[in-house]
Amino acid sequence: CTDHELLFRQESYFAYLFGVSEGGFYGAVDVKTGASTLFIPRLPEKYAVWMGSIEPPSFFMRKYEVDDAAYIDEMADMLAKIGSREGERPVLYLLQGLNTDSGNACKPADFKGIEEFTTDVELLHPVLSECRVTKTRQELDLLRYVCRVSSEAHVEVMRKARPGMKEYELESLFHHHVYTHGGCRLCSYTCVCATGHNSAVLHYGHAGAPNDRTINDGDMALLDMGGEYHCYGADITCSFPVNGKFTEEQRVVYEGVLAAQNAVIGAMRPGVSWVDMHRLAERKILEALLKGGFLQGSVDEMMEHHVGAVFMPHGLGHLLGLDTHDVGGYPSGTKRPSEPGLQSLRTARTLEEGMVLTVEPGCYFIEAVLGPALADPATSRFLVKDNLQRLRGSGGVRLEDDVIVTSDGCENMTKCPREGAGG
Amino acid sequence: CTDHELLFRQESYFAYLFGVSEGGFYGAVDVKTGASTLFIPRLPEKYAVWMGSIEPPSFFMRKYEVDDAAYIDEMADMLAKIGSREGERPVLYLLQGLNTDSGNACKPADFKGIEEFTTDVELLHPVLSECRVTKTRQELDLLRYVCRVSSEAHVEVMRKARPGMKEYELESLFHHHVYTHGGCRLCSYTCVCATGHNSAVLHYGHAGAPNDRTINDGDMALLDMGGEYHCYGADITCSFPVNGKFTEEQRVVYEGVLAAQNAVIGAMRPGVSWVDMHRLAERKILEALLKGGFLQGSVDEMMEHHVGAVFMPHGLGHLLGLDTHDVGGYPSGTKRPSEPGLQSLRTARTLEEGMVLTVEPGCYFIEAVLGPALADPATSRFLVKDNLQRLRGSGGVRLEDDVIVTSDGCENMTKCPREGAGG
Ligand SMILES: [Mn+2]
Ligand SMILES: [Mn+2]
Repeated sequence: CTDHELLFRQESYFAYLFGVSEGGFYGAVDVKTGASTLFIPRLPEKYAVWMGSIEPPSFFMRKYEVDDAAYIDEMADMLAKIGSREGERPVLYLLQGLNTDSGNACKPADFKGIEEFTTDVELLHPVLSECRVTKTRQELDLLRYVCRVSSEAHVEVMRKARPGMKEYELESLFHHHVYTHGGCRLCSYTCVCATGHNSAVLHYGHAGAPNDRTINDGDMALLDMGGEYHCYGADITCSFPVNGKFTEEQRVVYEGVLAAQNAVIGAMRPGVSWVDMHRLAERKILEALLKGGFLQGSVDEMMEHHVGAVFMPHGLGHLLGLDTHDVGGYPSGTKRPSEPGLQSLRTARTLEEGMVLTVEPGCYFIEAVLGPALADPATSRFLVKDNLQRLRGSGGVRLEDDVIVTSDGCENMTKCPREGAGG
Repeated sequence: CTDHELLFRQESYFAYLFGVSEGGFYGAVDVKTGASTLFIPRLPEKYAVWMGSIEPPSFFMRKYEVDDAAYIDEMADMLAKIGSREGERPVLYLLQGLNTDSGNACKPADFKGIEEFTTDVELLHPVLSECRVTKTRQELDLLRYVCRVSSEAHVEVMRKARPGMKEYELESLFHHHVYTHGGCRLCSYTCVCATGHNSAVLHYGHAGAPNDRTINDGDMALLDMGGEYHCYGADITCSFPVNGKFTEEQRVVYEGVLAAQNAVIGAMRPGVSWVDMHRLAERKILEALLKGGFLQGSVDEMMEHHVGAVFMPHGLGHLLGLDTHDVGGYPSGTKRPSEPGLQSLRTARTLEEGMVLTVEPGCYFIEAVLGPALADPATSRFLVKDNLQRLRGSGGVRLEDDVIVTSDGCENMTKCPREGAGG
């Protein structure tokens, strides 16, 4: 029963349809005509003292460019009129469904008088999720904006990062930059500011590992941070040597990840399978590690034995939009791959124009993965143990860009320097 | 079903007893011996890949200086042993209760095997709440720290504030300062960065009024912002003319609020009634408005007719600690005053050594309050309408300091310049 009120952030499907920033609203769209109506709470007089001026429905009708607006206590009556055909009450399609990524479920709307309507909670969720998979021109403009602002903040953080600083100083600087220069009050997810061995912890930065290490000379930094604007988020990762100079090993790993990213972005276009893109990234990373002397044998055989997943245990990337891991990754009827690495993919779809995805290959040296891989004869024969020894405990590298699939290729919205990040 | 994961913040009672920052723990204290035990989740192997290294109970025993630690799946057996007397299973006192301020309720702990214990959900909550009302030496050190850091950030914001900036730039700068210089990852509440007329909206800054106004030349700023460190928060408000110069009216209001704050802080000591302090602040503000020509008549009569609440509709201040509006304001059996103004007090207690309270007198010109006061003959006869007209729409002033009640007076932890804030 902590009295720590969190800043309200609009539910994403509601933000998608209505763009409302205040809490406590309802909205309806007449599927026959497309006419939209917002329903607002009738606020108590005290609201004016504590929260601000009380505005009538007409104010919100103009503010959010809907066709009509009314109070929530008028909703049942209004809805009966809005959608009635030949004197019958309309069917209400309510949003209920599971986020296949987070496992969060949305509960259908409930209000006084709903019992007099026929409701359907099956149809809307998959349709609306599918709508959100390919972005409109306005959505793309918002995403370009938030990616630009977030890219600039990453560059500022790279400029200011020095050994001796705390990791959280980088988080603080990033958020300050996207907020004060870009109006991003929230980040789209908890900042991952991992340096040294922490960069092998994929979701570092949470309350149990709160970006509180002091940065050493010689450390790589892996910074996964994105601003959020009008609920649309960026998701960008930069990796670089904090002192400005790669070690020889750091360069091998970095160049491998960069080659993977470039290869994927070069190959993305409508019709391409995201699973194939994941495999392409794995192959490029394995090739680099082979060339650097950390692996031995044939890359084709390594691919067969899923050696890629030893170094990149996460998926290549995910849909991005109102949610960082955006909806629609696995529409009903499709299934998640089961192979190591591929099973972590948050979507296995074929690319379509208007989709926005992150491209985030990574290469990590994670004890909990390397240990078993070295113990398993199926994978250990590819690993050059003595050379890998030099990389154990060094963390990992990830490069993450946010990319739009266009009619004949793709557009990279992320504007962070990737070549020559370490001198 | 938005996929927007929030940063975990420990529940305050649990933070009070155990200081744990990770989520998912349980804790027990043997009330006979005082021995403390933490119970930690048994994490899946994948945790090591995504979240960080998996530590054994002994690690957390040392980290949090408890007497023992074990896994949650061992809890029922451990508890049966820990507290058993003469072979009987101990009674478990579980935390269940209502926050009298936020209205949030805590649910009692639940775990496998609890059905074999006798439980009591009545006793613990009021006892623990009362413990939290007077602070320990260690708690005071934390509060002094977070107040110092937050004060410094306020000073930095005052230095950098200029007409033409957006209000949210001040919020961004404050958070950046307390985080990067003070390690405060969270603010203890949503920053109120109100300028011009917005400073009459007491809880400005929420999602429906998100600090997004451009600051004009001539505006007063009212900035209510505090950092949080190890769950302990500061709650500080500064008010100042953004261009550095008071208008004549702004000075009258500011000096009145400052006189109220100084009078209260000068009078605070054990045994003093907080209700009397609220009345003292009202009186000082009314005296200043009378002297400035905005009121007429006798201050004693104004006090009788609650004219103070027209200008300060909120309470003088509240207990402060792990919660911004800390627990224990109204222990069971005590009741909230019903008079205007006083009814907004979040505590009506008599001061005791070790209590920490905010002292936050304010004077606002709120249309929704002034309108009815001008229409009501009981109050309108004290109001000099023509002169007040010059203040309508100008917002308000609040000065908020965080103060410890000592054995013979009080200690002000807030270090913001209050005199001569406007040249
Ligand atoms: Mn990502
Ligand atoms: Mn306060």
